[in-house]
Amino acid sequence: MSQPNSDYLNCSHDVGLVKEKFFTYDQPFEMEGGFLDEFTLAYETYGELNQSADNAILICHALTGDHHVAGVYSENDAKPGWWNHVVGPNKPIDTNKFFVICSNCLGACKGSTGPTTKKASGQSFGTSFPDLSINDMVRAQKILVDHLGVSKLFAVVGGSMGGMQALQWVVKYPKFSEKAIIIAATAQHTVQTIAFNEAGRRSIMGDPCWKEGEYECKEGPRNGLAVARMMAHITYLSDHGMEEKFGGEKRLDPGKEFEFSVQRYLDYQGEKFIDRFDANSYLKLTEALDRFDLVGESGLEENLSKVEAQTLVIAFSSDWLYTPEQNKKIASALHALGKPASYIQIEDMHGHDSFLIDSPPFLRAVRLFLQGTDQEEEKRSNIDGFRKLKNRYEVKKEADFRVIDNWVESKSRVLDLGCGRGLLLEHLRESKEVTGLGFDLDLEKAISCVARGVSVNQEDIRKGLQNFDDDSFDWVIFSRMVEELPEPGEVLKEAIRVGKKVAVSFVNHGYWRNRLNFIFQGKRVRNEVYPHQWESSHLSNHFSVGEFEEFCQNLTDDKLGYSARVGRKLFHRGDWTGVCKWLPNLRAGLAIYEIIKEKN
Amino acid sequence: MSQPNSDYLNCSHDVGLVKEKFFTYDQPFEMEGGFLDEFTLAYETYGELNQSADNAILICHALTGDHHVAGVYSENDAKPGWWNHVVGPNKPIDTNKFFVICSNCLGACKGSTGPTTKKASGQSFGTSFPDLSINDMVRAQKILVDHLGVSKLFAVVGGSMGGMQALQWVVKYPKFSEKAIIIAATAQHTVQTIAFNEAGRRSIMGDPCWKEGEYECKEGPRNGLAVARMMAHITYLSDHGMEEKFGGEKRLDPGKEFEFSVQRYLDYQGEKFIDRFDANSYLKLTEALDRFDLVGESGLEENLSKVEAQTLVIAFSSDWLYTPEQNKKIASALHALGKPASYIQIEDMHGHDSFLIDSPPFLRAVRLFLQGTDQEEEKRSNIDGFRKLKNRYEVKKEADFRVIDNWVESKSRVLDLGCGRGLLLEHLRESKEVTGLGFDLDLEKAISCVARGVSVNQEDIRKGLQNFDDDSFDWVIFSRMVEELPEPGEVLKEAIRVGKKVAVSFVNHGYWRNRLNFIFQGKRVRNEVYPHQWESSHLSNHFSVGEFEEFCQNLTDDKLGYSARVGRKLFHRGDWTGVCKWLPNLRAGLAIYEIIKEKN
Repeated sequence: MSQPNSDYLNCSHDVGLVKEKFFTYDQPFEMEGGFLDEFTLAYETYGELNQSADNAILICHALTGDHHVAGVYSENDAKPGWWNHVVGPNKPIDTNKFFVICSNCLGACKGSTGPTTKKASGQSFGTSFPDLSINDMVRAQKILVDHLGVSKLFAVVGGSMGGMQALQWVVKYPKFSEKAIIIAATAQHTVQTIAFNEAGRRSIMGDPCWKEGEYECKEGPRNGLAVARMMAHITYLSDHGMEEKFGGEKRLDPGKEFEFSVQRYLDYQGEKFIDRFDANSYLKLTEALDRFDLVGESGLEENLSKVEAQTLVIAFSSDWLYTPEQNKKIASALHALGKPASYIQIEDMHGHDSFLIDSPPFLRAVRLFLQGTDQEEEKRSNIDGFRKLKNRYEVKKEADFRVIDNWVESKSRVLDLGCGRGLLLEHLRESKEVTGLGFDLDLEKAISCVARGVSVNQEDIRKGLQNFDDDSFDWVIFSRMVEELPEPGEVLKEAIRVGKKVAVSFVNHGYWRNRLNFIFQGKRVRNEVYPHQWESSHLSNHFSVGEFEEFCQNLTDDKLGYSARVGRKLFHRGDWTGVCKWLPNLRAGLAIYEIIKEKN
Repeated sequence: MSQPNSDYLNCSHDVGLVKEKFFTYDQPFEMEGGFLDEFTLAYETYGELNQSADNAILICHALTGDHHVAGVYSENDAKPGWWNHVVGPNKPIDTNKFFVICSNCLGACKGSTGPTTKKASGQSFGTSFPDLSINDMVRAQKILVDHLGVSKLFAVVGGSMGGMQALQWVVKYPKFSEKAIIIAATAQHTVQTIAFNEAGRRSIMGDPCWKEGEYECKEGPRNGLAVARMMAHITYLSDHGMEEKFGGEKRLDPGKEFEFSVQRYLDYQGEKFIDRFDANSYLKLTEALDRFDLVGESGLEENLSKVEAQTLVIAFSSDWLYTPEQNKKIASALHALGKPASYIQIEDMHGHDSFLIDSPPFLRAVRLFLQGTDQEEEKRSNIDGFRKLKNRYEVKKEADFRVIDNWVESKSRVLDLGCGRGLLLEHLRESKEVTGLGFDLDLEKAISCVARGVSVNQEDIRKGLQNFDDDSFDWVIFSRMVEELPEPGEVLKEAIRVGKKVAVSFVNHGYWRNRLNFIFQGKRVRNEVYPHQWESSHLSNHFSVGEFEEFCQNLTDDKLGYSARVGRKLFHRGDWTGVCKWLPNLRAGLAIYEIIKEKN
């Protein structure tokens, strides 16, 4: 766990001195592989529960984490909680607003009931501690949260194993949490991850000091556990991150205790770990992780079908333990179900551990998802909502938005491909109760969507469309997007498949100024549509009104059992302000088409 | 090690019955960390050494491999050597043509001198076996190869640790090997790889049965070694490959010995390994790998500066142990030094172990690199050399080739960006003794280059150019390539930096037919240059003669101390067959420019 290396936006006030607390549930508790007569959870809280008891945020910790999230235990305590930069007054999880709870999970070894706990007989549970599941941990947490008088969670938040718990929370108790943030997690372990855990467990259980789990506390399989930790620790970092950290001096001076700098580091990590963690706990918890499977036989969509919480899934680019792909699957399943969910992917070289690092875009996303848009966000978007327009660029943006806004019926379901900061979807939601989902590959724009409460998927359009069933949306919108797509015909056909109607706005390449320039000079015109000289242009695929019309004449797909035809169409003049009524292929600067799907 | 799952092009004849042989060098041999009074290498050979003794190919095996490459030990032997599908009569390493040698490497445990070898005292070396390096292994192999009467190796070939040995071979004995194939290798271990090895060594050395390396044979740190192997084995596979293999039935029936299918597999791998491999050998060899470093303080280019062999570096897309990036670095360093070398990257989901799998493009590349172009290759290229042209497409291809061919001076050094199958570079080499290097991202085309003996880098042009110093080439050629590049201006400037002259051929977007079509119909013309309707087009960035001329007027870079100006230029008419002498921006179908760099 790394120390945050900078304060975030001057919000450096900490929660200060904190105390750990204990809650004992004195009734039998059934688990995956047996039951407990009673259990205790160690926990901490920060901030105050409000009168309506609905401002609580539950944080779930990772495999080897604990309930000490923020603050210090004494004036001289140099080591604050593991998410001290995330949780506190004015921090992303703002303890001035929220009542924050974190408990050591069931089966762990930091004060909650687990293998090190002594049974009535005076002996520790050891391996006789019942096999448990992520669901068991969540059920125990729910009992604690109820005990604390919380009427409804505002949010459940967790990274890694904590993210899997957060996901299990919204599956198990769909009405109990308003929001969920699932960070660097997965709906099921890959075979590779199970394999790494298996090698770690074999290392522990093969250590003769493990003694079939009957070791004395503080003795135990120290070498086996250290090796398991070293190996797991490698999977928490990234190749690139390790190279940055140790690549400068890979080999140490000969004659030293360690030949390689990373050897010294891993050795230290291993040693530190065996003093703070229990081997049987490690076995039980990693098994719970390996067994966690929300895909199973019925599939992820079926298993997530009851979720009601607004969900934000956050992945990190260099995380190869719970990859962006795995995180994305969670959000995509929710999107396929029509649930409010967002997926964002943060560039960070710290691998899986990135969620523990002080990463400004990560902190920003958490803050804005929980607290909504802020002044800075408004400044970034550079607009006052949808109403006041300030410059020519905005006039143009307005042009097709206004038309599409007119076309979309109230309460429809809209997919906006290339949604930018989510302004159109926000406007449609507020004016017409439209439920929407946007796609945009730009992280900053995706975070703006999150701030507006607009569901967004930071995903490639072509991959993303495959995720949806036929007729999933009333409208699919391409607002000046098609020109950026290779082989756009296929994408348009996919959009017609998943939508009932498609709106396409595009810049007319056949506009007379373009043509004149080309005929007289053999050059393209430079304007706001083609802002660059050819040598600094991106690749693109411009087309004209005429070409688009030709394409639309052949949109019958007998195999799929439907055809599509052009419905309304509308053209703007070259300055995009006025409507163009005749010779659009020559005179229109911007074209907006409605394509209507009809069953054969 | 997997069994090849199909025969390759009906070349299924095996080398048949083989015998292992032993060679003892009875003189003192100095090593990285001590010396041996004598050493023995176990080895096998297949095929016959020719009269000039220059048809030998040395194969170097991987960490846990051995010298039994091909054939069987008895009629009933069901398990042929580990590269039986690669080595044999008419196979890619053709024993009808080549004399193939492989020895168990020094320090290993399959018959060559290593930690299990008994010293004069009757005791095994154990950990007292001197620390060794990849270079020591190679030096011992050289003594064997000399003993076998080989005057010069035709090639040295190896994958993984064997690839590192092959690389060390051409560094240490630059004149001794004509060719080298370096497969799934690296010039130095990453920190991550060292870390995995370190966890494995710690597992072995922490096992009480290791007894500081003084264990009795067949006893020893069985659990520690099994864990090390399990962990390493995960790094040999890919995430995706493991999912394919075990994802269908991740969890086994409850109550079985193993809870997860991959657990059973790893357990089996671990058990098999401890019966066939020695723990101290594993320690010594992995340390040798971790220490191998051809980058070091002086840098890879400096360390490869003496290489003379024609080199082929082959990487596999899903290899995350020795990544494509790491393999590419070897070839790129050789390219920066102006050496004949090629880099190709094969799509395969089997991870690092892909080189052991029966992969058709891999086998094809090895065969063609060693044996030159074949009938099938000629058919694929669909041409009879540079001379007979068969169709319109070839006429067009010829058009700019002929001009560029005229311009390039003999014995120049040429970089061909987007080189395709290497026809131009082959022609220039044969007609003008030009030394060349091509870039092409298409594997099949890159393999065609390899077949022609044309150096090729299967790498993105933009990344690749950064690799070269100023003035590395006499000519940099873009043959109808610039239109496919985003922001091509930057790439052209980079080309001017690394070249002395640049030749650019492009399709003139200002050609009158394009213009007329556009002015009258507002549509692009469809022809062989624009073969697709807009809806099935790739992204591109077409430009006209006029636009290109404008760009060339501003090619002075005071900061870099040079400017560039247009030298010769030549235009072809719309059908690309005749020269176009006036109004090229309107009338030319194809334009070819010479840009000349001049120091300020």
